[in-house]
Amino acid sequence: MKLDRLVGERFKERPAEAVIDSHALMVRGGYMKLVSNGIYSSYTLLRRITRKLENIVRQEMDSIDGQEVLFPVVMPASLWQESQRYESVGDELLRFNDRTGTPMLLGMTHEEAAVHLVREYGQTYTKYPFMIYQIQTKFRDELRSRGGLLRVREFTMKDAYSFHTSQSDLDNYYMRCFQAYMRIFQRVGLEQVIAIASNSGMMGGSKSHEFMLETTCGEDLVVTCSNCDYKANMELAECIVVNNTNSIIEPLAKVFTPEMKTIEEVSGYLNLPLEQSCKAVVYQIVETEEYLVVFIRGDLEVNETKLTGYLGQQIYPALISEKSGLTAGYIGPYMLQGVRVLFDSSLKGAVNLCCGANEENYHYTGLNIEREVGEVEYIDLAKVVEHSICPICNESTLMISKGIELGHIFQLGTKYTEKMNMRYVDEHGNSLVPTMGCYGIGIGRLVASICEVSHDDYGPIWPFSIAPWQVHICCLHSSDISTKQYADKLYEELQNTGIEVIYDDRVISAGVMFSDADLIGVPIRIIISPRNMKEGIVEVVSRDKVMNERVDMLQAANLIKALIERYKNT
Amino acid sequence: MKLDRLVGERFKERPAEAVIDSHALMVRGGYMKLVSNGIYSSYTLLRRITRKLENIVRQEMDSIDGQEVLFPVVMPASLWQESQRYESVGDELLRFNDRTGTPMLLGMTHEEAAVHLVREYGQTYTKYPFMIYQIQTKFRDELRSRGGLLRVREFTMKDAYSFHTSQSDLDNYYMRCFQAYMRIFQRVGLEQVIAIASNSGMMGGSKSHEFMLETTCGEDLVVTCSNCDYKANMELAECIVVNNTNSIIEPLAKVFTPEMKTIEEVSGYLNLPLEQSCKAVVYQIVETEEYLVVFIRGDLEVNETKLTGYLGQQIYPALISEKSGLTAGYIGPYMLQGVRVLFDSSLKGAVNLCCGANEENYHYTGLNIEREVGEVEYIDLAKVVEHSICPICNESTLMISKGIELGHIFQLGTKYTEKMNMRYVDEHGNSLVPTMGCYGIGIGRLVASICEVSHDDYGPIWPFSIAPWQVHICCLHSSDISTKQYADKLYEELQNTGIEVIYDDRVISAGVMFSDADLIGVPIRIIISPRNMKEGIVEVVSRDKVMNERVDMLQAANLIKALIERYKNT
Repeated sequence: MKLDRLVGERFKERPAEAVIDSHALMVRGGYMKLVSNGIYSSYTLLRRITRKLENIVRQEMDSIDGQEVLFPVVMPASLWQESQRYESVGDELLRFNDRTGTPMLLGMTHEEAAVHLVREYGQTYTKYPFMIYQIQTKFRDELRSRGGLLRVREFTMKDAYSFHTSQSDLDNYYMRCFQAYMRIFQRVGLEQVIAIASNSGMMGGSKSHEFMLETTCGEDLVVTCSNCDYKANMELAECIVVNNTNSIIEPLAKVFTPEMKTIEEVSGYLNLPLEQSCKAVVYQIVETEEYLVVFIRGDLEVNETKLTGYLGQQIYPALISEKSGLTAGYIGPYMLQGVRVLFDSSLKGAVNLCCGANEENYHYTGLNIEREVGEVEYIDLAKVVEHSICPICNESTLMISKGIELGHIFQLGTKYTEKMNMRYVDEHGNSLVPTMGCYGIGIGRLVASICEVSHDDYGPIWPFSIAPWQVHICCLHSSDISTKQYADKLYEELQNTGIEVIYDDRVISAGVMFSDADLIGVPIRIIISPRNMKEGIVEVVSRDKVMNERVDMLQAANLIKALIERYKNT
Repeated sequence: MKLDRLVGERFKERPAEAVIDSHALMVRGGYMKLVSNGIYSSYTLLRRITRKLENIVRQEMDSIDGQEVLFPVVMPASLWQESQRYESVGDELLRFNDRTGTPMLLGMTHEEAAVHLVREYGQTYTKYPFMIYQIQTKFRDELRSRGGLLRVREFTMKDAYSFHTSQSDLDNYYMRCFQAYMRIFQRVGLEQVIAIASNSGMMGGSKSHEFMLETTCGEDLVVTCSNCDYKANMELAECIVVNNTNSIIEPLAKVFTPEMKTIEEVSGYLNLPLEQSCKAVVYQIVETEEYLVVFIRGDLEVNETKLTGYLGQQIYPALISEKSGLTAGYIGPYMLQGVRVLFDSSLKGAVNLCCGANEENYHYTGLNIEREVGEVEYIDLAKVVEHSICPICNESTLMISKGIELGHIFQLGTKYTEKMNMRYVDEHGNSLVPTMGCYGIGIGRLVASICEVSHDDYGPIWPFSIAPWQVHICCLHSSDISTKQYADKLYEELQNTGIEVIYDDRVISAGVMFSDADLIGVPIRIIISPRNMKEGIVEVVSRDKVMNERVDMLQAANLIKALIERYKNT
């Protein structure tokens, strides 16, 4: 293709709204244009990339016996009422009525549609296992879209659903899909993606993995151990801390702490380390407005995802009213009555703690929970902090980093099949409910992530597998007839060898030509110029600057093809 | 692929809701499943077909310098407010608010999105012409979906938009796209598709063509001439009739026609042919409720599309109230006052007509419009009838048939670019508005249409270009080890030659196996059986029954490949 025909604008200025580099470069390079909050149109460049990426994903799904189907974007509410998600999912599920008044919704995931499609097909055990997938537009009404394609409202996703007659069969398939995902990431140059066990959130089910790309622009937190293989999502990672248990046990003592309401103020005043304090964090249950006090070591924070998971109920930070019976700023576990209390595991074994005295302007020191409160249950409710203890190798080697979630796979179990009454008859004539897995990967987010980890100040550096073209010919001074004729011929020849070529023969400065090429990010650049012609060569430069070769202009096509093959394999 | 792994149910019974064959066969064959009124999920079979079809469309769009992009499914209302279509398009445009209350809509066509995407890119004349297209899900909230995939609410469409700096450049490109469309239809076996000039409806613009497949299950009416090349959409076709002008001119005479309100009753009573009557058809203008009387020859009907086009206003059949001043059932042009009147061209030159006398129970005979009413303007407002006169060859040879609209191309002119303020600077520095074309083709409707014209009682007969597989191996008695081993080997060998094969090795009766194969509609079937093995042959049968060969089982793969090539070229 001739570059002067490529639809899409390129410009120099970093767009004001872009916080991260991939967003800025993909807007500057004419990859996409914002249509509405979290909704983009794709130009030619991005569409070429996504089509290649979609085909890689398709190949890997086909390689694990997936069958491509297509579910609707618009679904009737009745389908989601069967699974009870119509009520349980929040406002990110876009609901509306059609012209007849029938309640409908925009698909943000398709478990219900998948069960609907195969409910009759899967009535006998001989049909199992099977997997169906689609690559289709989805809509999720995010309040805060950000980072270009990293978090949008409308997006293209590959979502897959597998059906099984036993847990072991699901386990096997889940592992095959896990490996297919790792192959996808490898094929697009993201060898550094890690898979971590995760909380499966609103999807239900028991086991899931997130595929995370560690990068500072991510909004997920990933916990890894620098000493062993342990990896976990922040939301799930177990928090293990040690307490100094060698101290001489002190008696409980009430101290006057005027106007000191935070644990930092009190500890500072009493000259105690934060770890030697018992902090109260107060919530209310959404449904009942009931109060709930979580006691946790003063240096740690409550992980609300863990707390919600433990309770099985939604919570919010409490508004402490007079009639709550709580003394805000002075809440402690000793003699606290009339409210539900939970103790975080960080307090287990801790002694001589400072805590609130449930009385305005007073705290205690010398709290020993077993002595003052009695036997209590300790629950893991704290957020992991750096250098806390790895649950696998027991070293204080946990690290926290930011990541982008590129894919997510789940063992759903029978959550959907049971509610939607999908059943099969086994070899003994018993009617049973099949078990399910689901497997998602966002196409646009994957492209943005590749750009994020593979770019320089001037533009993206696309890997061969998804690059919009493989070779970019820059013909400098194409007003010179023999230069232009040579470039035209090489353009033809390279295309005839099956290479995808973009050809820039505009009469413009080398500076503009190269900065456009940088923004387009094609892996191999060929520079043809009158000066090179005089020397009988063309320059072959890789976008990542690793390769810079001069090849004989008379055999350029073959030499370039060989160079590309060699370069691809490095 | 093994047939026993193919997801999707097949069944014998014709579904009750299916009126047309393609709908019935595609439901019976496990191609698709209804999710909601006018909304389907696609099984593996249909997805394989649509992917091939999409690729054919993509190739042809690329061959005319189209660039694939992607527009959003969900768009902000503000974009459609720019073109003023947010207000003008009816309830088929699905409108809703997102969670922040912002009005949004589901794209049913993407002219606005196209202009939005290239508004900045196309600021200078050197960028022109260019064409962008997408293959994407659309939603149109039809009240009456019908015919399986023929008329649905959610559908996949290829829509393309071209931009030009002159009418002649648009004309040239329009013709290139016209030819690309004809190639698409040819490649999928629909050589019989005809292109007809059409009314461009809500799209605006001046010139358009519909690509029509003539079939009795269509819901469009197509007018063709059996004597020349004339073709037109019923909505646009000019109605030309002759009137007998050789009669002796009669005087106007009032006759008593008690209780006779229809032109048929009156003509019967007076023993006059319907052609010798002047019928009144009364409408009201939607906006003003003003009455409008159309006089037309008694044997013809008013074409309301022509009438609306002429008026530039929406109309509805009148409710004739007392204060209208009209005498329902007895309206005639003589002495009719206080109401707007139009005369259809069919009345031009007609003499001695019967018509209403604007008085209860009375009609006139002997009406001669010029004499009684004076000079009037005649406008073409009638529906064409069979055997009316061809406007090209002047013979009474017009025919009316039913058709399915498979594609539609439009010269939009500057309707959208002007309203959305897209401008470019020409070589002289003038700021001008580019002109546009748009080009649509429905993927699902095309598949259904191919099935409709190419099927038998047992299933679809897919053309090679879009068939889900090219070869279907039926292994009868696969419990016989040597038969099964041979079939397994041939399955491998055929695949190795690059042929797509579906392989049925289920232990079932030949009857079930063949009826499944009929429903899947793969063009070439290979029958392997112990009896054939004994004779040293395999049978090669085409789905359309044209070919039925026995080939040597020892060289089967090569012989079959050669047979297929020969058969494809017939």
